[in-house]
Amino acid sequence: MNETLRTILTRRSVRAFKSDEIDQHSVEMILRAGMAAPSAYNAQPWHFIVINDRKALSEDIPQMHPYAQMAKQAPLAILVCSSTLPPKPQANAYWQQDSAACCENMLLAAHSLGIGGVWTGVYPNPLRLPLFKEYFKLPQDIEPIALLIFGIPDQNLPKTDRFHPEKIHHGTW
Amino acid sequence: MNETLRTILTRRSVRAFKSDEIDQHSVEMILRAGMAAPSAYNAQPWHFIVINDRKALSEDIPQMHPYAQMAKQAPLAILVCSSTLPPKPQANAYWQQDSAACCENMLLAAHSLGIGGVWTGVYPNPLRLPLFKEYFKLPQDIEPIALLIFGIPDQNLPKTDRFHPEKIHHGTW
Repeated sequence: MNETLRTILTRRSVRAFKSDEIDQHSVEMILRAGMAAPSAYNAQPWHFIVINDRKALSEDIPQMHPYAQMAKQAPLAILVCSSTLPPKPQANAYWQQDSAACCENMLLAAHSLGIGGVWTGVYPNPLRLPLFKEYFKLPQDIEPIALLIFGIPDQNLPKTDRFHPEKIHHGTW
Repeated sequence: MNETLRTILTRRSVRAFKSDEIDQHSVEMILRAGMAAPSAYNAQPWHFIVINDRKALSEDIPQMHPYAQMAKQAPLAILVCSSTLPPKPQANAYWQQDSAACCENMLLAAHSLGIGGVWTGVYPNPLRLPLFKEYFKLPQDIEPIALLIFGIPDQNLPKTDRFHPEKIHHGTW
């Protein structure tokens, strides 16, 4: 099995982090990986808020997001946002899917660098959306999609197997 | 740069394919990679229709999807579908993002195996949705999200750089 497949198949959501900072080169590689995602009409609708302020991580984010308590120990979070303006008049709303592909690239890039990450959902949660939009001063046409929280793993997660052959259909359902 | 990062940063949408079949092991690895994606509430909402019927690829799909003409030459397509039933009553609709992460894993897995792929959007296009639902006999609560088309690349795509530092914001927008 090649290294990419191994990275994809061994990635787990990491929710316990050491206090070590994430070096700038790794942060840039994670962002580069996100921006390398495919997007409908090559719109690249994503934007990123890089968060390493201690108060934001330890106090403010955990108050806004019930499932982001692990930010209290994390050295880094990145809020992946998306423009909601369609790139062409006839374009449909693919920006949610585009941004999700971007998030997955970032989590895989982190894992390949020995950095753990977890995806916490923001869009379309009606409680979290206005809190995140206001706190991070997002423009009207920019939506917060997901908060990715990163750090050096402080837990040993067992391998998991999510392969379910019954989800595979041939020709038609 | 490690192999995973190289795979992520060199993946391109491939739209010209040789006639070679994709071997069964590779098809399984692509599907395993898809199922290894993270999902909200670990719902794993995805299902897969594996399509290698010549008439479906050469005639029927290109009629249903204006941007899937490359299926005419391709040996394989996989329709990624999603259950729309929320895994928990309080869960929001994250299945579109879950399925997109799944698609990206599949395209990266393919690229790591020397297989080219392209993501063609289905959901939420109002013209394509009913055509795909009927043709592939999808149950009521299953939506077609994206048609991924795969084959051995028959084109040499130059590297591309989608890194845009102006999309990176620090602390707040």
